[in-house]
Amino acid sequence: MATRFDFEMMAYALKLANKGRFTTAPNPNVGCVIVQGNQIVGEGYHFRAGEPHAEVHALRMAGENAQGATAYVTLEPCSHYGRTPPCAKGLIDAKVAKVVCAMQDPNPQVAGKGIQMLREAGIEVEVGVLEPQAYQLNRGFFKRMASGMPFVQLKMAASLDGQTALANGKSQWITSPQARQDVQQFRAQSGAILSTQKTVIDDNASLSVRWNELPKSIQSEYSESDLRQPLRVILDRRGLLTPELKLFHSDGDILQVGCQGQLEAPIDANGQVCLPTLFATLAKQHNLQHIWVEAGATLASSLLKQGLVDELVLYLAPKLMGSDGKGLFSHLGFTQMDQVPQLDIQDVRQVGPDIRIIATIKHA
Amino acid sequence: MATRFDFEMMAYALKLANKGRFTTAPNPNVGCVIVQGNQIVGEGYHFRAGEPHAEVHALRMAGENAQGATAYVTLEPCSHYGRTPPCAKGLIDAKVAKVVCAMQDPNPQVAGKGIQMLREAGIEVEVGVLEPQAYQLNRGFFKRMASGMPFVQLKMAASLDGQTALANGKSQWITSPQARQDVQQFRAQSGAILSTQKTVIDDNASLSVRWNELPKSIQSEYSESDLRQPLRVILDRRGLLTPELKLFHSDGDILQVGCQGQLEAPIDANGQVCLPTLFATLAKQHNLQHIWVEAGATLASSLLKQGLVDELVLYLAPKLMGSDGKGLFSHLGFTQMDQVPQLDIQDVRQVGPDIRIIATIKHA
Repeated sequence: MATRFDFEMMAYALKLANKGRFTTAPNPNVGCVIVQGNQIVGEGYHFRAGEPHAEVHALRMAGENAQGATAYVTLEPCSHYGRTPPCAKGLIDAKVAKVVCAMQDPNPQVAGKGIQMLREAGIEVEVGVLEPQAYQLNRGFFKRMASGMPFVQLKMAASLDGQTALANGKSQWITSPQARQDVQQFRAQSGAILSTQKTVIDDNASLSVRWNELPKSIQSEYSESDLRQPLRVILDRRGLLTPELKLFHSDGDILQVGCQGQLEAPIDANGQVCLPTLFATLAKQHNLQHIWVEAGATLASSLLKQGLVDELVLYLAPKLMGSDGKGLFSHLGFTQMDQVPQLDIQDVRQVGPDIRIIATIKHA
Repeated sequence: MATRFDFEMMAYALKLANKGRFTTAPNPNVGCVIVQGNQIVGEGYHFRAGEPHAEVHALRMAGENAQGATAYVTLEPCSHYGRTPPCAKGLIDAKVAKVVCAMQDPNPQVAGKGIQMLREAGIEVEVGVLEPQAYQLNRGFFKRMASGMPFVQLKMAASLDGQTALANGKSQWITSPQARQDVQQFRAQSGAILSTQKTVIDDNASLSVRWNELPKSIQSEYSESDLRQPLRVILDRRGLLTPELKLFHSDGDILQVGCQGQLEAPIDANGQVCLPTLFATLAKQHNLQHIWVEAGATLASSLLKQGLVDELVLYLAPKLMGSDGKGLFSHLGFTQMDQVPQLDIQDVRQVGPDIRIIATIKHA
């Protein structure tokens, strides 16, 4: 049975793992803490694919103190030779007495083999301490592993009464500079930003991460030299994007979807880019596991209707615009309340003068 | 200069005052703490019009310990003989050395005279400690005093995308039982509930306070025998309310507005009950200073357009309904973003599975 001390150590390992959230993709975030008696003798986290795993950092720091110690790892140690030797072997060689894992690795190449390797070497293994939190940390990684599809976050902004613009389309500055700055950290954590030619053209949006606009607390753990720009995936069936747009004059790769010479995508019955196929392609060919969507009501509604949204990140500005404005979603055509998408609120807070709501979509 | 101790004592006096929030109307909520050295020797709050003021309770408890003590009062002590003798006199007679008031009383019958009376008796008086909080506690009382109009809270409920019903009108159970229970405490604090015949008939709403549905924490400080039912003010120009409705079979008085035999009200240019006139009448003739509105988009929009809403209490259910649903407000006809009503978020929290946002309307 896990003790309170075990939970505290795993919580700390999760906190370490979280430091890699801007940089490890397509690898998962993993943290490791090594404890001798009740003293932390080693700690580490995975920083970037190709660099050492969390356990390697922690074991290096612990040195001979690892002998007889307990290692807390947020994910089952790997058992296969990849770009680095298996971590299970590292823990065995260091002669740790016990390993506590938050969860088993769903990767079929590991899937319990790491735990088995440890147990066969006589190491006591406990699995399942803070498992929901560990799962949460790598939602994109696990979703892609399980389904071949990326984790999709949909960002939207509206007035308190759910309007994104006035009847005549005017919408400038619905949300505050603080809210727009808050968006930067979500972009920075995503592998790709999905948008449409309409949003890019209407807002002349660059859809890039601007390091100096990230919150100071993030700048202190994520230096400008480590900045990664998400791939910008723009739906542009008719090839309307033009070279003078800011999009083409800001950092980061661009993938135009649906038009000639770029990523071609099948068209669905509504004449739109087939989104499930696009997402599967992005996951498979572009190694993407986490997509951040910034677009208008049309794309948002298509994603919602097709069950492709995992989480909504909604900024509400303290304004009331009236129902002659433009709504967050298009007509969805529901006739019964039990057809309506249900969500679970994960977080609600004020961001400057605005409110930010994070809610996961319940899938039937 | 007020010390940290002064602020702590005033905060405690405000907490005491707040205990009267269900019962003191049309009197204000007032709390009093008497401190000898650094020890509380007396405390009290006003409970109901006609019963002793906060200072009287606190002085009775302090007895001879009031001599040379400091009294913290959330509102300037009264100086006139009403249903009770003036509290300023009580404090002088008890020989307190100092009085700290959160704010001056805006009531023209008091307005600095209580403070003057104390000073003339040689008592040191300090004014303005936690004044904004003290103002907040009696917004209805102060607004009516200053303008002759009641403080108006507008309650609304919608999906996350601001829809109150599907296109076909279906809306049952948008918000949770917890949110509906939360509403009870706002009703209980109001002097009147304003609604329309349409809302009353569509929902067969009783619009009464049900003590056993109040949060347990409130039940413990507000007993069933003290329960007051707000006046239910129903706009019903065409006299459509019928006697079998729940409204007529639940506790509390009812005022039908606009139809024969009840409160007659002038009709405005749009053929609607003239709301500013109605509110002024309710304040003057019915002693009302705090109105809680539960109605649909039409009344909400009229109130908003006429600048009659002070605060919005908005419940958002974790659902997405699409813009073919019915919006929170009607068409408001704005063409520029600077015409849009702006609000200040006062409080955001989860209530069961829903979100509750409290926001005050900024008046130009």
